[in-house]
Amino acid sequence: MTRQEIIDHIKEKRSFLCVGLDTDIKKIPRHIIEEAGENEYEAIMAFNKAIIDATAPYCVAYKPNTAFYEAFGTEGWKALNDTVAYIRDNHPKHFVIIDAKRGDIGNTSAMYARAVFDDLKADAITVAPYMGEDSVKPFLGYEGKWVILLALTSNKGSLDFQLMKDEHGNRLFENVIRKSQTWATNDEIMYVVGATRGQMFEDIRAIAPDNFLLVPGVGAQGGSLEEVCRYGMTADCGLLVNSSRAIIYASGEKDFAQAAACAAKAVADEMKEFLDTYSKI
Amino acid sequence: MTRQEIIDHIKEKRSFLCVGLDTDIKKIPRHIIEEAGENEYEAIMAFNKAIIDATAPYCVAYKPNTAFYEAFGTEGWKALNDTVAYIRDNHPKHFVIIDAKRGDIGNTSAMYARAVFDDLKADAITVAPYMGEDSVKPFLGYEGKWVILLALTSNKGSLDFQLMKDEHGNRLFENVIRKSQTWATNDEIMYVVGATRGQMFEDIRAIAPDNFLLVPGVGAQGGSLEEVCRYGMTADCGLLVNSSRAIIYASGEKDFAQAAACAAKAVADEMKEFLDTYSKI
Repeated sequence: MTRQEIIDHIKEKRSFLCVGLDTDIKKIPRHIIEEAGENEYEAIMAFNKAIIDATAPYCVAYKPNTAFYEAFGTEGWKALNDTVAYIRDNHPKHFVIIDAKRGDIGNTSAMYARAVFDDLKADAITVAPYMGEDSVKPFLGYEGKWVILLALTSNKGSLDFQLMKDEHGNRLFENVIRKSQTWATNDEIMYVVGATRGQMFEDIRAIAPDNFLLVPGVGAQGGSLEEVCRYGMTADCGLLVNSSRAIIYASGEKDFAQAAACAAKAVADEMKEFLDTYSKI
Repeated sequence: MTRQEIIDHIKEKRSFLCVGLDTDIKKIPRHIIEEAGENEYEAIMAFNKAIIDATAPYCVAYKPNTAFYEAFGTEGWKALNDTVAYIRDNHPKHFVIIDAKRGDIGNTSAMYARAVFDDLKADAITVAPYMGEDSVKPFLGYEGKWVILLALTSNKGSLDFQLMKDEHGNRLFENVIRKSQTWATNDEIMYVVGATRGQMFEDIRAIAPDNFLLVPGVGAQGGSLEEVCRYGMTADCGLLVNSSRAIIYASGEKDFAQAAACAAKAVADEMKEFLDTYSKI
């Protein structure tokens, strides 16, 4: 999917919401498990399909997190594959991010790229930068596919290393963004920046003025959407803001899909106002 | 598996070799693919079983890399699962490392831990430190299970960020080791240190005197085993040195398993001498 297609979709929906499909069998409504005859694959698929169809009008992207599928082994991996296929077939405008945070030596990263782009047919993968350029490059060069590189994450542990300053006063996350800007264009790389770091979006826009940013941490993790937009939005929007738990587990009862739709709509309604205020689309 | 059990196995075998099961269908001998009737799962399993049985006398650990299995989707994940089970059932003394380089926010890392320790039943997982303490901790606290944290990797890209110096002159990989020493004991955390960084093992032993180190980069990547042992070996050995491609693809013909055994034996023979020289076991 091209940058322009993403922007057009945001413009049409007046939303830049990404719904995180962190599907945990322990949190799926009980009636789904029963209807699936306790079959985990069937339960995950039934839940995901209902959540996707209910939220699609209010979001522009989906982000399944591989951890939640790998935890169910072979059946889980099949559910991940079939979830991506379901989005592709039924909501082809939606951008599909595999949240995998991969990164390894060249020949290994190349295998991950193949897994995500050729086999799963997703649009993007999140990548961890610790191993540097040759661990990231194998994910680049797939036409219309994206690397979303971890820069400044939303969790407490982001303080441990990402803010470490070098001899020139540059922080690690800034060095990651600066260096990786020489590896790829705005049409193939985005960055993960946690919503819990509101003011730092200004610093990030100083070095990555046009890149799309994938922003987790709104919702269950407590980040402020208003701050993210004030400091991080560009003329083209330039943001995909993710919410997982607050949407997909909005209700644990029979109305779970409807409740997810309402939670997604509430975020999208806020987003519309921020787009009107801070972007030009 | 406990630290003492690993040491006892090294002592018994006079080897600290880890065989990396980076099984790539494109590199498996043609006759295996044909005998498996072109079925990828069957081909991977036939290859892995033969390699494992042939090399088991010369190594103490196996390290399947998840990327190579994920690239074959559901069938690949099944092959990963069944490969670990095969080692468990047939070579129960061998330490099984899932080379996954995972690391995510707490609830997600917890799911990866479940995937690797509960579902796959492996002994250890490699973890990337970029997201800090709360991304690593969910992997700790499983009895007899290990986190192997990336510190200084063997690839060229390791120069991009891992050697970045902070205001006090400490390099990022040193900060990773120092900080993580406060999260876990020697009985539950190891570090990845590339063999291509021979002399730096001295610096690492200054801050992690007793931890086991998992050392990739000998073999296809060109690191020196002698340097690794001279600078990195402890009285208890303290090293697991990995070789993947140089062993498992030693021959692409019908003698592939025999050739892998010979390649593993050659490394083990060298290791015996280094154990005699530099360790006390």
